[in-house]
Formats: sequence, structure tokens, C-alpha cells
Amino acid sequence: MVNETQHTCSASSSSKSDGGSSSGSESSKDSSRCSTPVLDADRHERLREKMRRRQESGDKWFSLEFFPPRTANAAVNLISRFDRMGAGGPLFIDVTWHPAGDPGSDKETSSMIIANTAVNYCGLETILHMTCCNQTKDDITGHLQKAKRLGLKNIMALRGDPVGEEWEEEVDGFNYAVDLVKHIRNEFDDYFDICVAGYPKGHPEAESYEADLRYLKEKVFAGADFIITQLFFRSETFLKFMKDCQAIGITCPIIPGIFPIQGYHSLRQLVKLSKLEVPQEIKDVIEPIKDNDAAIRNYGVEQAVSMCRELLDSGVVHGLHFYTLNREVATTEVLKRLGLWTEDPRRPLPWAVSAHPKRRVEDVRPIFWASRPKSYIYRTQEWDDFPNGRWGNSSSPAFGELKDYYLFYLKSKSPREELLKMWGEELTGEESVFEVFTCYITGEPNKNGHKVTCMPWNDDPLATETNLLKEQLEKVNRRGILTINSQPNINGKPSTDPIVGWGPSGGYVFQKAYLEFFTSSEIVTALLKVLKKYELRVNYHIVNVKGQNITNAPDLQPNAVTWGIFPGREIIQPTVVDPVSFLSWKDEAFALWIEQWAKLYEEESPSRMIIQYIHDNYYLVNLVDNDFPLENCLWQVVDDTFELLNSQTQQ
Amino acid sequence: MVNETQHTCSASSSSKSDGGSSSGSESSKDSSRCSTPVLDADRHERLREKMRRRQESGDKWFSLEFFPPRTANAAVNLISRFDRMGAGGPLFIDVTWHPAGDPGSDKETSSMIIANTAVNYCGLETILHMTCCNQTKDDITGHLQKAKRLGLKNIMALRGDPVGEEWEEEVDGFNYAVDLVKHIRNEFDDYFDICVAGYPKGHPEAESYEADLRYLKEKVFAGADFIITQLFFRSETFLKFMKDCQAIGITCPIIPGIFPIQGYHSLRQLVKLSKLEVPQEIKDVIEPIKDNDAAIRNYGVEQAVSMCRELLDSGVVHGLHFYTLNREVATTEVLKRLGLWTEDPRRPLPWAVSAHPKRRVEDVRPIFWASRPKSYIYRTQEWDDFPNGRWGNSSSPAFGELKDYYLFYLKSKSPREELLKMWGEELTGEESVFEVFTCYITGEPNKNGHKVTCMPWNDDPLATETNLLKEQLEKVNRRGILTINSQPNINGKPSTDPIVGWGPSGGYVFQKAYLEFFTSSEIVTALLKVLKKYELRVNYHIVNVKGQNITNAPDLQPNAVTWGIFPGREIIQPTVVDPVSFLSWKDEAFALWIEQWAKLYEEESPSRMIIQYIHDNYYLVNLVDNDFPLENCLWQVVDDTFELLNSQTQQ
Repeated sequence: MVNETQHTCSASSSSKSDGGSSSGSESSKDSSRCSTPVLDADRHERLREKMRRRQESGDKWFSLEFFPPRTANAAVNLISRFDRMGAGGPLFIDVTWHPAGDPGSDKETSSMIIANTAVNYCGLETILHMTCCNQTKDDITGHLQKAKRLGLKNIMALRGDPVGEEWEEEVDGFNYAVDLVKHIRNEFDDYFDICVAGYPKGHPEAESYEADLRYLKEKVFAGADFIITQLFFRSETFLKFMKDCQAIGITCPIIPGIFPIQGYHSLRQLVKLSKLEVPQEIKDVIEPIKDNDAAIRNYGVEQAVSMCRELLDSGVVHGLHFYTLNREVATTEVLKRLGLWTEDPRRPLPWAVSAHPKRRVEDVRPIFWASRPKSYIYRTQEWDDFPNGRWGNSSSPAFGELKDYYLFYLKSKSPREELLKMWGEELTGEESVFEVFTCYITGEPNKNGHKVTCMPWNDDPLATETNLLKEQLEKVNRRGILTINSQPNINGKPSTDPIVGWGPSGGYVFQKAYLEFFTSSEIVTALLKVLKKYELRVNYHIVNVKGQNITNAPDLQPNAVTWGIFPGREIIQPTVVDPVSFLSWKDEAFALWIEQWAKLYEEESPSRMIIQYIHDNYYLVNLVDNDFPLENCLWQVVDDTFELLNSQTQQ
Repeated sequence: MVNETQHTCSASSSSKSDGGSSSGSESSKDSSRCSTPVLDADRHERLREKMRRRQESGDKWFSLEFFPPRTANAAVNLISRFDRMGAGGPLFIDVTWHPAGDPGSDKETSSMIIANTAVNYCGLETILHMTCCNQTKDDITGHLQKAKRLGLKNIMALRGDPVGEEWEEEVDGFNYAVDLVKHIRNEFDDYFDICVAGYPKGHPEAESYEADLRYLKEKVFAGADFIITQLFFRSETFLKFMKDCQAIGITCPIIPGIFPIQGYHSLRQLVKLSKLEVPQEIKDVIEPIKDNDAAIRNYGVEQAVSMCRELLDSGVVHGLHFYTLNREVATTEVLKRLGLWTEDPRRPLPWAVSAHPKRRVEDVRPIFWASRPKSYIYRTQEWDDFPNGRWGNSSSPAFGELKDYYLFYLKSKSPREELLKMWGEELTGEESVFEVFTCYITGEPNKNGHKVTCMPWNDDPLATETNLLKEQLEKVNRRGILTINSQPNINGKPSTDPIVGWGPSGGYVFQKAYLEFFTSSEIVTALLKVLKKYELRVNYHIVNVKGQNITNAPDLQPNAVTWGIFPGREIIQPTVVDPVSFLSWKDEAFALWIEQWAKLYEEESPSRMIIQYIHDNYYLVNLVDNDFPLENCLWQVVDDTFELLNSQTQQ
């Protein structure tokens, strides 16, 4: 993937980047050179360029359509669905526009906010639908400006359904999708990639199939970049449509919309809305099994797979667009059977990158938010620049406050009752807290038989990488070293390693061992004595909720704890332990005890007071073993600490 | 050295660097955080801070005084002396001000330009002397502005000798050094560190020893940061002076000026100028041996060593200042015997850093100028920013042109006759050029019995590191792969390694194998075929003098070829292979064939035409083996190339 192209450029054609013959007085600020690592071309290309590149390389792709949820809880679920389905590698997702649901508002269920979350917090290339009929120019411009501000880069321009029964043209208003396309190009120039809808059977309201094709051509010539079609039931329908489009001069990509039949009623509803006719051979299969959901879904998957295969085999289809109806199973199944679901264990960076254009050069983050990337993104959303190359160069210590722990994309997926079962209906002392941490690490059920699958600092089960440390982690959590983040040391594994690898292939990745935990002041006192022996090897930061801060970090410099060496590139060092941002993280990490855990219990209840006591008195500690080629010494540090404590007790 | 200090700071005292509680809307541009790697505290501290730190740590130091040379050739020699004596680790050097020698001019022998070269090209902390009598305010301000512009940060403020016989005060003029101190503080605030002269026996023109002490106090209270004394012959003289200074409230550092007696005549002259009296016990030794230079020098060394020991043993002396008289042997000998000469093989970075304050964050350079660092500094002197962390972020491709190959600090130390002996009085073909390269590598004499100790691309013998590759280099040079730069691959050696180590202790250094050479187009054609096999592993840039450029570098990105991992720090990657600056280097590398070699011969002579032919037809090639943990494959690439050529010849 990397390093394969041979560039041959003559002296004259390379003049733009070759400043060799200029006077030397030019300021480096004026340099026209690319200043970013370009680890992943995907982060720098527009959607239409990605499509073109995939088409050229013959690499087939898929995309996924979702509609905005009705409730905040449904929004939380939809966001985790984005994360799960995003793992399969869609080229983009799109979010429909619900005129009745205040789609441009700041509500957590609005189309705008769902699309914003997909881009910024889930890192997905996203198209926001937008309809224009019955809206003023100002409204529409306002929506578009907001979309741009939020980092959205793609719009699906639609007419939308008229409110009244009969369709009446408004003078000077937006009557057709083409008006919206023109408006976007007029007001926003080439900023947005624009998608429009195509109707393989013709739009139900069009005079004729041919007339509809002409409208489509108008939309494309007005500035649309590609077309996604309405659903259809036979591959011939699409292939004929595509040929007809090309015949009248439409040359942009046309992406077939695939609708895996998932149930009798959803099919009927959709057909009614879209005024499509279900072919007889499909009706014949479905009618007899209409009350058997599983059977219909199985048939739907079969039918979709075979139609998709025909489309892909035709040679003219490069990508497939799926109408998911916000469901996961059928679409994922179809994609897996087609071999398009590519749960690529390789990551461009060890953390999930955000798709906001402002963040596209970002390639360094503090390790602290490793399990809470959405919180990190939220707290840095006001930054103008993002660190690139080195944390110290361009990062800002100005983290936004995290007051609202109930922001829907930060909310725990588990409801209160579930959390109480995992973390204890009633706590009897600090030891019952140790027990919860230990069960989370081991994956064993707690004494009431419930597995602990999340913690306030981590909404997901333990990472595969952390599993490498499981045995030691269990041992120390039992004794009150309450770990919330860790990584093993790695001395040059291939970048394609399924567990710790990241970045382009052909590289080598490295890590320094890291351990972060809450613990009592008694343990901290012993730990500090032990750390004197490790002064040159281990860097530490120890802080309590009041901000008392003990560290041996030289000049408050960041310590790179993950880095990678790749062919033909500069070094990438995507995670650092940064002493300054640790103090912002500390506020969040301590607050999570209260916000997520203590508040499960009644005020003044013993359980709540136990958590409050830990919050008020424990320290948050992080340790880095700088000697990455040697065996991780952090476990020895902890052992030595317990040994010292034991010897003191015995005296 | 690193990592030893334990910082304990409360939440309130850390508020400056802790932005955790601010609103998040602050732009990262406003960040008050240190943005540099601070690899070496020395690069960031002012001279007076370095002195304080050394005093606190009990680490004794020395400094060296030089005067400006009379001729350009003497300047070349003085600059190499700076490099050699700089290796012993002086805290600073100082350059005297010769009012008669146009000291502020741009002449290569002026005080200003010599000090400029010491700072910028030799990387030495430097004090420029400046005298004020018989000069206008404007002249002096002009000199100071120029010094500041050139990156000089320290001034020794002196009165200077009046021109006439008798001393007359000028109204409103600069009559005393104190006037100059005040002027510097008025006009330049705290920019410069200021040094003044102290007279352990009192200034010869002062009314009394006590009056002179009061003048000295005036100079210090006017803003001087430290004092260097006139020479003296007995340690008691200095120790009494120091006590007397402290008694009247002078608390700044007072540095004894040491003059190792190096010859009878120089001693007499100095004594005459400084109006000092040589103690009888010294006269008694010297007079009988006055015609035996060696004997006098030996005595001078003995005498200086014993006096210096007394001073250091007193406990109040932390540094010694040496009047070198631009000579090397005696001072070096004294310093070595005192244990102060610390030729530390450890380097802060693999290349010698410049001491210009503008360049203090610089920590990345292209590998191409590895053997011509002064040329690199010259060609980038107009840059406003220097790359820091990543080459791509802050570097400018705008290299200044290098037209003047005879800039005194770029000039070969060897005269033309010497070069002809090394490189051949008469060349008989390309093979005789191969022979010169081979002799340079092996260190064996050429066929006329002369060793080749420098090349146009490297004024020094082969680096120790390159010696690791000697055998292979010899083999390929014999066959017309004319190497000018190379490094072996290194997979994590300790940063204290005597050959390849650099940076603070406790770290690990890494390298990718690198090879750069000139070669014929015939070899390049075969090489390109061979490189196809190594496409994913080896990055190459191949360019001829006309700028035809063949590369497989992805998106013209730089490739980090040297990097280091240190405790508590971000990754440092001090050398890169940068495709863009390679084109600037190419111009210089090709021009050196003509400027340094071809021009040794008569125009149209066969020897000159041979070099001209190579210049016009050869390619400059660089190769990087990205797989640094494996055995260097570049020799295999070259072997494969010759094998392919052989097989073609046989067909």
C-alpha cells in the first residue's frame, strides 16, 4: 500500500516543491510543502476522491444508511451501532433528514447531531441528508453553515415530501432537489461533496422514466458528485438504469441502493412510501411465511446476496449502498457473505481517529483517554490546531470542562439496574470495590453471579492488548491497586501484529510499559519509597483530587509511550504521557467515581459514602517503565511496595 | 543527568501550566507551554544560568580566550582550532576586540565575524569583547545590534586603550567600561549577558587598589553579570582579591584569568602591556632557560597546573578562564592534567548543534550535509524557524544558494598542492578517480605514496561510525560506486554507546542503513532493475546534475533514518532523508566536483575534463534500507547490480 509508486519527475515539473534555487530568504511559514504525516490517505481525501481511488484500484466498497432515533436512549444505542458497524469498514454512512423531527436542531436525536456524532466521535465519513421543499433559503443556508461548522463535508440533496396532498410549485422557493444542489454550489462553492437520488424505475411523480432521467442529468450538471439510487428488487433494473444514465451523458458514480428484506411489515411500509412494486416472484416467497420473521430475514439475506453478486459481477458496480433501517444483523450478514465486511484488525493509529477535517493532521494524544476517546474529542473540540508529530509542539492544555457526564455519546450503554448488579447493590467497604475491579479484569462473575463488563472509566470489556497483562492485573487489583489503564512494553513488533500492530504494513511498533491506577495514601507512601530505587528507569505522576502532584518528569515534558517506524516516513508517536493534560484527566477520572458510581446509591447511604471516601482520599498514579527493551519492571515496583508494607506491618 | 529531579508542586502553584480548569476556548496558539524537546539544557540557558547551575552542582568548568587572526588563512586555522578545542568542553570562549582591525566589520578576520563563526558554525557559547573609548554612541549601538542579529548573546564590556598617550575624559562620551555596561542595559535591556574585567592587583591607572575595587563594584551594580580577571601569577593574589570584592558587596561570579607561560618573549610582551610584575621566583626559573622554548612551556604548564589546583582547592573557584594566545598545546595540557578537559564522546544530537538562539529548538536535519554542517548552517541562515520534532512541520525547502565555495569556514584546511598530492596531479581516467575514493576509505596511501585524508564532500578523515562499513565501502568504491555518505543500521543500542550513541543517558538509539554515492548511468540502469526486487524495503532517490529525478518515496515524504528513545521524553529523530532538500544538496554535491576538484587542474587539461565528464554524466544516488532490525540489505543490492552488469557483459 505504501511505497509502491514510482514517481519520476523532471527538474522543471518538480519546481513547486523544489525550493533549491530560490533565494533562501523565504520564511518557512510560506512553505508550500505538505506538513502532515499522511499516515492514512483516507484522512485527507474527499469522499468523491476516495470513491475514485477505490474504483481505480478495483477495491469494492459499501456504505450504510441510518435514520435518526426517536429517543435519547435510542441515540445511545445507535451510536454504539455506528461503532460496531463502522468496524466493518464502510466507505461512508448517511443519516436521513426528518423534517418533522427538528432535523437541524441541537437535540440529541436530530439528524444534524447524529451526523455530527458519527463524524466527530465515531470517525466515520458521513453524508447528511437535507430536504428543501417548504423551507426558506435562509433556513437551508443556516443548516448548511451549521453542518460545515460541525465538520460535515457531504450532503445528500433531496426535494423531500411536500406537506400538503398536492404538489404546488413555490415561486422563488426550492421546488426540486436541483434547486438545492445549485444553492449549495452557489453559497458554498466546492466545499461539500453532493449526492443526489436516482430512481431506477423513475420517480413516481415524474411524467415518464425518460423525463426523470433528464431531471437526474440536470441535478448532476448542477454540481452533484454522485448518485445513490432508490431501492429495487432486480439487478437488471439497476443495470438498465445505469446504461440509460450513461447514454444521456451522466458519467458520475451511480451507487445501487440495496434493501435486504427484514420483515413483512417493514417491506410493505417501504413499498407503500416509495410507490414501488414488489416483483411477483418475491411476493410468492414471502406471503406464505409472512408471520415467520426469521424465515423472512433469511430469505431477505439470500435475495440481497444474490442480487449484489450479480451487480458486482457486472463489472460496472464498484460500491453498494445499504438501507439498514437502523438494524445490524441482516446487513452485516449480507456484507460478510459478499466478503465486503472487512473487520481489518489493522488500525491507522492505535486510537480511533476522528473524521472532522480540522482533526485530520492529529496524530498524538495523551494515553489517559485511551478508553474514553469520545470524552477526549468532546473536551478538545474547541481547539484550533491538533498535535501533529509531537505533543509539545501544537497541543493546548486548555481542555474543556466535562460537566455533563450524561452527554448521550458519553453515557453508559448499560442502564442503572444493570450497573448496580455489576458494581454492587450495596458496598460493605473498600474491599468490595477492589472486588469489582478484580472481576472486571478476570471476566469472572461477582459474588452475586453478575459479570462486570464495564467500569466508570471504560464502557467496554477489557481490550485484547490488556489481556496480555491479565494475571498481574488481577493480583494487584485484589490488593487495592485499582487499575484503569495499562499497556505492555513492546520492542519492535511488526506493524501488522493482530494485537498491538497499527499503521501501514512493513513497519515496526514499540511501546513503553504503562500502568495507571487509583490507590490509598498508605500504598502511595510505600510506593514513593520504592520508586527511589527506580528513579532513572520509571517516570511517575501521583496526584490526588485536590491536585497535590508528585512527579519526577523532567521539566514537565511529555513521554512518548507508543511509537512506530515505517518505510519512507518520519517516526509516528501517537500516544504520550503528558504531565500537563494528566491534571485535566485527573479531574475527569476522579469525577467518574461520583458521577457514574456513587450516584447509583442514595445520598448518605454507606455505599455512597464508601465511594465518596475513595474519591476524597485515594491517589491517581501513573507509571512508565522507560526501559522498553527489558522486562517490564512495573510489577516488580508494585511487589516491592507490598513487601515494604508487609514488613512495616510486622514491625 | 536527566530525570533526577523530583518536582512537587501543589495545584495552585502549577496553575500556569495546568489549563485543566479553563474554558477550553483558548486557542492552542496561546499556550504558554514549553514547545521544545529540551534535549540539552545547555541550549536553552543563558551563560549566567549555566554558570549558576555548574556552581550549584559543583561541576568545575573552564573557558578559553582567543584573539582575531590577521589573515584569511589564519582564520581557517583558528576555526578548526575552535572545533578541536571546543571538543574539550569549554563553558564558553571569548574573542577579543581589536580596535585597529575594523572589529565590527564583515571581514573574515574581524572580531565580529570570528565570534559569529564560533557561535553559529562551531556551536560554541561565545563572548564578544567590545571596547568603548574613542567611539560614538551610534557606532557602539550599531555593533551591538549587529552582534544581536548574528546570534551573539554575551558581551565583555571594556574601556579599551586610549589612542593618544594621555587619557582625557570626553564629555558625553564613553570614558569607562561602566558607561558601556549602562548603555547596553539601557538600549538592550536584559538581552545580553555582560562580563567586565577585574584587576587582582588593581588597574594600573587606578589611584589605588581600593579605588579600583569601587570602580569594579560600580560596573557590577550597573548591570554586569560576572567578572573575569586579568592574569596573575600567584593564587593568593586572586583569593585575596575575591575576598576583598565580597567584602564590599560584589556577589557575582569572579573568574580567575589563567595565563600558562608559553615562551619568554610572549611573557615579556604581555607583562609590558598589562603593566604587571613577574614574581621573582618565576623570573629565577625562566631567565636561565629563556632560549629553550620547550623548557619554558613545560615550566609554564607546571606552574599553571599547580596554581589552578590551589584555586580549585580553595573551594571558592568554580571556573578557570584561559588566555590561550590562540595556541592549543599548553592550555590543553593544563586542562587535561587538571581533569577539566572532558572530551565527552556523548553528543546531544548526532550532529553538532549551532549556538545561535534562533536555532535552539532545531533538532532535525537532512542527512545529506552530515559531513558539511557549516555549509548547511550557511544555506539555512535566513530561515525564520528551524525544524523541531518533525522535518515536515517546520522546515523550509528554501535553501540559500552556495555560490561562494571559498567562504573561509567552508574552505578546505589543505592547500592546493596538498590536494593535488591526495587527489592526483594527473588523472588518467574514471578509474583514477575510483582509486582516490578507495584510498580515502581504506586510509592506505595512493600510488604516489600520499594518504587521502579529505575529499571535496568531507574535509575530515572517515568518521569512526563509517569505519564499521569500511570493508564493504572499499569493495564498492573500487568498482565505481563512489560513496560520499553512509551509516550502518542500528537496532536499539544504548545512547551512551561510544560510537553511535547520542542524547541523554538511559536511552536507546536506532538507525536505518543509508548509502549515498555517485555512479555512472550504466550502473544506475542496472541498479534500477535490481531495486524492483527491493521495492517494499528500500527507498531510493536517484538524480543527475540536470535534475532528472527517480524515486519511490511516498508523496515526497521525509524518511527518518536516525532516532532515539529517552526516559521521560518524546521521540527525537535528528536525521531524515528528505526528498525535497535532496535536490538542493544535489546542486551542492555536483558543484563540489568542479569547485574543489576540477579547478585544481588547467582548463581543458585531460584531468579537468575527466572530472567534468563525471559531473555531467554521473548520478547521485541515495538508498535507505527501511528494515532496520534485519541485516543491512544495501550491500546485497549493490552486489546484485554488479552481478546483473556482469551477466549482461557476458551475453
